[in-house]
Amino acid sequence: MTIVGLGAMGAALASAYVAAGHPTTVWNRSPEKAAPLVEQGAAHAPDIADAIAASPLTIACLTTYEATFAALEPAGAALAGRTLVTVNSGIPSGARAMADWATGHGARFLDGAIKNVPAAVGRADTLHYYSGDRALFDEHEATLRVIGGDTVHLGTEPDLAALYESAVGGTLLPALLGFFQGAALVTARGLEASTLVPYTTKWLEMISSVLPHLAAEIDRGSYDDPQSSIGIFHAGIADEAEVAAEAGLDGRWLEPMHALLERAVAEGRAEQSIAALVEVLRKPA
Amino acid sequence: MTIVGLGAMGAALASAYVAAGHPTTVWNRSPEKAAPLVEQGAAHAPDIADAIAASPLTIACLTTYEATFAALEPAGAALAGRTLVTVNSGIPSGARAMADWATGHGARFLDGAIKNVPAAVGRADTLHYYSGDRALFDEHEATLRVIGGDTVHLGTEPDLAALYESAVGGTLLPALLGFFQGAALVTARGLEASTLVPYTTKWLEMISSVLPHLAAEIDRGSYDDPQSSIGIFHAGIADEAEVAAEAGLDGRWLEPMHALLERAVAEGRAEQSIAALVEVLRKPA
Repeated sequence: MTIVGLGAMGAALASAYVAAGHPTTVWNRSPEKAAPLVEQGAAHAPDIADAIAASPLTIACLTTYEATFAALEPAGAALAGRTLVTVNSGIPSGARAMADWATGHGARFLDGAIKNVPAAVGRADTLHYYSGDRALFDEHEATLRVIGGDTVHLGTEPDLAALYESAVGGTLLPALLGFFQGAALVTARGLEASTLVPYTTKWLEMISSVLPHLAAEIDRGSYDDPQSSIGIFHAGIADEAEVAAEAGLDGRWLEPMHALLERAVAEGRAEQSIAALVEVLRKPA
Repeated sequence: MTIVGLGAMGAALASAYVAAGHPTTVWNRSPEKAAPLVEQGAAHAPDIADAIAASPLTIACLTTYEATFAALEPAGAALAGRTLVTVNSGIPSGARAMADWATGHGARFLDGAIKNVPAAVGRADTLHYYSGDRALFDEHEATLRVIGGDTVHLGTEPDLAALYESAVGGTLLPALLGFFQGAALVTARGLEASTLVPYTTKWLEMISSVLPHLAAEIDRGSYDDPQSSIGIFHAGIADEAEVAAEAGLDGRWLEPMHALLERAVAEGRAEQSIAALVEVLRKPA
């Protein structure tokens, strides 16, 4: 096993392979990051082509596809006949370009997503997902499970892991902004933001609990038996704006969400499930 | 105990009190909703003033403060010397108006929030919160625990429960839209939205796990030791827009969130924690 990129996550992956008894070679642009892993038993290849050549399978764990290209470019020839797995952040077009580049150099390729923190590497309750060559995934599944809990093959198109990463990760900024807006509301009243955490945590659990129902509505394309209707959300628009204004907060980031609700109501969807917003998102005005 | 309003939640509250052996009187604008509760052992008062007069404590569970006013208005005189607890949805200004009205009629008043589904009433893992007169809360805490799990007094100002409800609830629409955008992305590729649910559920757990750290940063007003920086989110803006555009989706609802990140970077906050966005929300441009 070769690990390319020894940031916090890459180092955690390398540690896990060393601990599991895999002969492990590591490479990082700043070589001093390799020292703690060499101490654990990894081999350090200061040259990227040597690092790739050292193992049949390389996992590249850099921040982006751009950073991954930059690191691997000098080692293109070494990839021929070997397997490359990338687990950086990025979007489908980046994954497709990476797949073309890797297979163009004669490598077999999988793209993966590790959506958790380095401390969770190898824990049973984590989810890792990969896409690309199915036979290749099957061949390496046991090895990939060393760093994952639940390890899933999403499909043969190499950009599916990046697609899911984008689709899942897109919830982060909106959800955090919702929390920050709430924190600004309570702190404007002299209360600590920390007092909000147990309530928001329960609330996110509640949101998780309704996702299967909402997803099933989307998959059926049928929104006429709602647990929570667009009209209910639409009725709350004025309240949300008033609460933000009363606390002197910038509530304008909510306006286009409210505009989506307005469009949905204008389309006659007031009695439909809130999941019907997906139909509005699919038809840019 | 009197329960006013027998929608799904009000009926669940009344059932819980009957089951716990409390003499329970119920009222609803459409009286037929009372029948199943009378069968369980509740008394039905068709007149709202009689309903209030039947018990020292009334819990009004209607949709909004407006609906609660409309139901209780004819019974103002009956409130004198009794206790009113409201558990509808609404915002702080509505709670203050309700408190003024109730105390103006000689009632003692608490406002509460029950942020879960009717099926969860009485379950130990739920959170209910109230605000207003502390002595009144202490007096009725055991009775309120019949319908709650964790039952908390937030403070003496009567609008604090509504404030927390707004602050917590404001995460819902943004988080759901994030999920719907993801669902639109994967379904545009012919995959089911349902396949996204386990990943998003894990992701919301991850978001919950970082809230204590983010809240502590906000409470300290210190953002210089970030787990996740504004710069990292800012770097993702172009990717988010590209992914939405590639799938033909309406990504415009994300634009003002991106504008908040741009403002934060322009203020020199790129290396600060993402929690510093709360400072941007506090200062409308």
